[in-house]
Amino acid sequence: MKLHTLAVAVTMGLMTTSVLASEDVAALEQRINELEQRVAQTEQVSTEANEKASSFEFHGYARSGLLINDDLNGATGTGPYMTAAGAIGAPIGRLGVEDDHYVEANLIHKRFADDGSSALFRIMLADSTETNNEWTASESQLNVRQVYSELNRLSMFSESEAFSEATFWAGKRFDRDNFDIHFFDSDIVFLSGTGAGVYDVQMSENWKANFSIYGRDFGEIDSSSTDVENYIATMNNRIGQWQVMLSGMTSADNDSRLNGAAESGVHAMFTYHGDNFFGLSEGFSKTGMLVGSGLGAELKGIGSNGDLLDDAKAVRLFSYGVTRIGDNWRLAPALMAEHSQDRLKKNDEFTWASLNFRLAQELSENFEMVYEGSLQYMDLDNSTEQASGGFYKATIAPTLKLSTSTGFFDRPELRFAVSYVDWSEDLNGYSISTEADAATMGEGGEVLFALQMETWF
Amino acid sequence: MKLHTLAVAVTMGLMTTSVLASEDVAALEQRINELEQRVAQTEQVSTEANEKASSFEFHGYARSGLLINDDLNGATGTGPYMTAAGAIGAPIGRLGVEDDHYVEANLIHKRFADDGSSALFRIMLADSTETNNEWTASESQLNVRQVYSELNRLSMFSESEAFSEATFWAGKRFDRDNFDIHFFDSDIVFLSGTGAGVYDVQMSENWKANFSIYGRDFGEIDSSSTDVENYIATMNNRIGQWQVMLSGMTSADNDSRLNGAAESGVHAMFTYHGDNFFGLSEGFSKTGMLVGSGLGAELKGIGSNGDLLDDAKAVRLFSYGVTRIGDNWRLAPALMAEHSQDRLKKNDEFTWASLNFRLAQELSENFEMVYEGSLQYMDLDNSTEQASGGFYKATIAPTLKLSTSTGFFDRPELRFAVSYVDWSEDLNGYSISTEADAATMGEGGEVLFALQMETWF
Amino acid sequence: MKLHTLAVAVTMGLMTTSVLASEDVAALEQRINELEQRVAQTEQVSTEANEKASSFEFHGYARSGLLINDDLNGATGTGPYMTAAGAIGAPIGRLGVEDDHYVEANLIHKRFADDGSSALFRIMLADSTETNNEWTASESQLNVRQVYSELNRLSMFSESEAFSEATFWAGKRFDRDNFDIHFFDSDIVFLSGTGAGVYDVQMSENWKANFSIYGRDFGEIDSSSTDVENYIATMNNRIGQWQVMLSGMTSADNDSRLNGAAESGVHAMFTYHGDNFFGLSEGFSKTGMLVGSGLGAELKGIGSNGDLLDDAKAVRLFSYGVTRIGDNWRLAPALMAEHSQDRLKKNDEFTWASLNFRLAQELSENFEMVYEGSLQYMDLDNSTEQASGGFYKATIAPTLKLSTSTGFFDRPELRFAVSYVDWSEDLNGYSISTEADAATMGEGGEVLFALQMETWF
Repeated sequence: MKLHTLAVAVTMGLMTTSVLASEDVAALEQRINELEQRVAQTEQVSTEANEKASSFEFHGYARSGLLINDDLNGATGTGPYMTAAGAIGAPIGRLGVEDDHYVEANLIHKRFADDGSSALFRIMLADSTETNNEWTASESQLNVRQVYSELNRLSMFSESEAFSEATFWAGKRFDRDNFDIHFFDSDIVFLSGTGAGVYDVQMSENWKANFSIYGRDFGEIDSSSTDVENYIATMNNRIGQWQVMLSGMTSADNDSRLNGAAESGVHAMFTYHGDNFFGLSEGFSKTGMLVGSGLGAELKGIGSNGDLLDDAKAVRLFSYGVTRIGDNWRLAPALMAEHSQDRLKKNDEFTWASLNFRLAQELSENFEMVYEGSLQYMDLDNSTEQASGGFYKATIAPTLKLSTSTGFFDRPELRFAVSYVDWSEDLNGYSISTEADAATMGEGGEVLFALQMETWF
Repeated sequence: MKLHTLAVAVTMGLMTTSVLASEDVAALEQRINELEQRVAQTEQVSTEANEKASSFEFHGYARSGLLINDDLNGATGTGPYMTAAGAIGAPIGRLGVEDDHYVEANLIHKRFADDGSSALFRIMLADSTETNNEWTASESQLNVRQVYSELNRLSMFSESEAFSEATFWAGKRFDRDNFDIHFFDSDIVFLSGTGAGVYDVQMSENWKANFSIYGRDFGEIDSSSTDVENYIATMNNRIGQWQVMLSGMTSADNDSRLNGAAESGVHAMFTYHGDNFFGLSEGFSKTGMLVGSGLGAELKGIGSNGDLLDDAKAVRLFSYGVTRIGDNWRLAPALMAEHSQDRLKKNDEFTWASLNFRLAQELSENFEMVYEGSLQYMDLDNSTEQASGGFYKATIAPTLKLSTSTGFFDRPELRFAVSYVDWSEDLNGYSISTEADAATMGEGGEVLFALQMETWF
Repeated sequence: MKLHTLAVAVTMGLMTTSVLASEDVAALEQRINELEQRVAQTEQVSTEANEKASSFEFHGYARSGLLINDDLNGATGTGPYMTAAGAIGAPIGRLGVEDDHYVEANLIHKRFADDGSSALFRIMLADSTETNNEWTASESQLNVRQVYSELNRLSMFSESEAFSEATFWAGKRFDRDNFDIHFFDSDIVFLSGTGAGVYDVQMSENWKANFSIYGRDFGEIDSSSTDVENYIATMNNRIGQWQVMLSGMTSADNDSRLNGAAESGVHAMFTYHGDNFFGLSEGFSKTGMLVGSGLGAELKGIGSNGDLLDDAKAVRLFSYGVTRIGDNWRLAPALMAEHSQDRLKKNDEFTWASLNFRLAQELSENFEMVYEGSLQYMDLDNSTEQASGGFYKATIAPTLKLSTSTGFFDRPELRFAVSYVDWSEDLNGYSISTEADAATMGEGGEVLFALQMETWF
């Protein structure tokens, strides 16, 4: 009996154990089954949400604000190209002197294929107005500045060393590899127009090259059979930290549009992209030279100026960098200088040099004092009249932003700015244009007050 | 043996049990391990999708439709400001009389920082055309009405009682705290322009205030050294259910732009925001008064009218509300009245009062009959000519929408409307403007048919 | 003792087993509990992300490129409507001859209600420019071409056989059921304007119908009391594979706007939508006829031409299809022909027929050669002058795209194209318009080079 009892007890115990265990385990198994199904569904939803065949992106740039002169009127005629030399591309420091409402709104559609290739489509709407009122229809400049498509990593080139990472494009665009000195509001090169090309062709291990053709128009388009266009062929190379960009251009019949105008041109840019601040400290710096002749003598907007003479020649130097000084200060010096001659009239000759210092003092995570000092030397001879002298600007701008520690390029910024601008009397009333009604520099010695926002994203 | 057998049996049973259990459990454990990994991944994907550092939003308003007169021609010159007094801001009920295609499209970019602060950027494109054709380039008014940035809950103010919830802004915008009487298509105040300010400064427990500076332009902008601008400083207070808004403005040299025009002004608004329908029933109601003098005598568009005389004075009263009557009816009465003098000419004097009743009868979840009766009394003296009398409008509009039960402000609405408009003969051909070619009221007594959509989101 | 030992052993074994099992199981149970909570949360986040009450969509069409003639100038006056008959809607094959930058950008907002009904709002911005430069403000055509709202599957009709799937709309739009022959850049019908209607009324099992009213403007809109408008009532039926569209229109006082102009019109379209290539192979084909008189004699843009005479009559035939030939070739032939008389002048008479062959040879997944041959026969008599003859175009276009195997309608495409265009000498200098300064065909025999992108999404 005892044995029997024991056996029963053991059996019951076992049974109980195994019953309990199997009930528990079966219940758990059931719950795990359900969980696996739910997780699989959630994963699928989540994956589908992330592996979309297409996507939308919104990117933009904008600045807007009030600019007030010392008579408490709206300031006009100011901006980074406000000097006489501004007409040929000489900038001054932009902080606190821009009086326009400028917007770029990019609407981007991407399409992704299963083989890893993809397509991008972009339109950019842009506008620039000066009125501070909100209904701007009567002076609206709203227009489509870019409309192009790109094809990336096409599978037909997946085995090609040269083209496996290449991007093909066509349409109207700003060239992808344009770059600027933000503090001058000046691109180093601003290649744009309508055309086609290929980016990121791997020429060798350290050498990538872009090949592009751009067309631009000189003068009005009409329905007659002839429109003068300028066709620009560009090769843009990145070899290590060096960038070498070579462009040639031809514009048939431009001489018939404007007597004496060039019908061809060449342009070259050499730039060193430093990953520190001139070898002195952390940050970055970029230094280089541009040269051009004929239609290529418009050094920034390559091929955009159809009025250049056949003999036009220009050379431009630039250097700028960004670094930290101590814990709470940042410094960004910039230099740009150009000499050109036989530009718009035989024997005209223009020399200018712009020097700018932007300094920021971080007072909290959201507040900084920004200082800018800007100088420009001009020696201008438009073949009938000469003037030379200097332009001076000093600005102080208390600034709010989300993160001062992120540096000079964190946006949006909300700022108040006070600037003093003045220039040599010799420059008063001077204009590079020889036309009678050309805008001139006017007289200097003015205080400007600004309430501004600037953003990009 | 038996014992042995038993022991074996027990052992085997135990072994079996434990083998089974551990196999099962181990398998389950393995499945749970895998599930945990998968859930963690899904959570991360899901979290990343929701904790984006930036976002895009699209918001808009639009109305578009056909407006046909009783000769089966396109109706023109109609709308909420169609009466003679409309030129100085007197509205009539809008239902069934608007003949324009008006669009506002807001593209918004938000950026979120880890510390809880955030930034907002908005551009608003707007357009207004009258043609019913689809290619509207020749009469397009497409323009950028707003472009501004905001910074919210900056961490530097997280310890500040006054500024911890504040929003700083700069750029071109409609003031955030503008509000309207929808049925009149009239803002109570419409403060706008370019400037900067701070919202939601906590002055005390029940008192929040906004401080803003706006600039506006009078006349054309040109590149001469002087543009006449009006600078408006505003303090907008919310104390419990009361809103008190005080504005002062100054426009240097406006008198030199237009002889006799004011160079300064003051403006005040007092409003009670009721959270029920005048204490009578559920709903809401808003009642208040606006006063202004000089440049402040343009009571709605604060500081927007540079032609006001220095002696200009105006006072405006308004009241409106929205409530339910029984299960299927809704009512929205609205009143606005103004007296002004010495406005554009010495001794001009204008009095008007607009009364409007909007009534909706919900016939199903998607269909309602909307009725509107509108009256306007005018007593107008532009200093050379006088006229007085009344304007009358009655409209019935069968309307489709997603949810009639959501009330007056659910959109989109698709509607057909028939209106009868008429006015006192004394007003025929009268215009507030004293210029020879000014548009006049014409003759009354017309039936208008409308096929319209209206939406906002 | 042994028994005792056994019992202990058994008990210990049991205890161990059950302790182990219950510890394991309890731990697993705990992990499953946690997992269930996490999965529930993730599901909710994921569900909320997918069951949004509203959504944004971006859709568009764009083409942009360089078009260069054999003098290396910008080609002008080219395009699918470049022939004399183009003025009355006669297209030629579009490949390689379009010289404009054309963009359509649709911003769409959808709202979803819990009861399954939904609303859609669309604005379409469009632009068309010819300059290849990027700042196009001076010739911008940017405008709002569409602005409308739709209500879908309203719950009040959920029990209705006719209206349960219907869509109601109002505003300014392109009719939803317009369709085109892409290769001609020509719609078969392009009904557009401002109005209201209902789509997809289920008349019987195989018969769906749309009912719409559209208004269009003839001439300029001004603020006088009368604007001449054309009101078009349309019934558009789909009965199996047949589409029968019937339109009537009336324009009061159009004769007073332009002496002799029609004040009414009728229009009909009959189309067979084949789901294979003319019964011969896979693909699709569409074949049909359009007829109209009076204001209905503008067969494509229904009701859009207010200058048509009361006696105007026109009939148009069309047929096109798309198929594969073998593994790597695709073919798309298209035909369109029209005869019209008493159109703009008493006794004018115009006959034209356009024939086009588009052929694509798929050389890899991303590259194809596209060929197009296009003919147009014209016999034109504008009542004062006659001309007849043919237009000929041949184009070859190496093309890059994401997926050649997807067929003719996969976009974006990046293409280079060379075309030769020529026409009968008899047509040189001929214009359908009898006005002195009307644009004419000029002289033929030209080679055109194109670098283009085209996309839609």
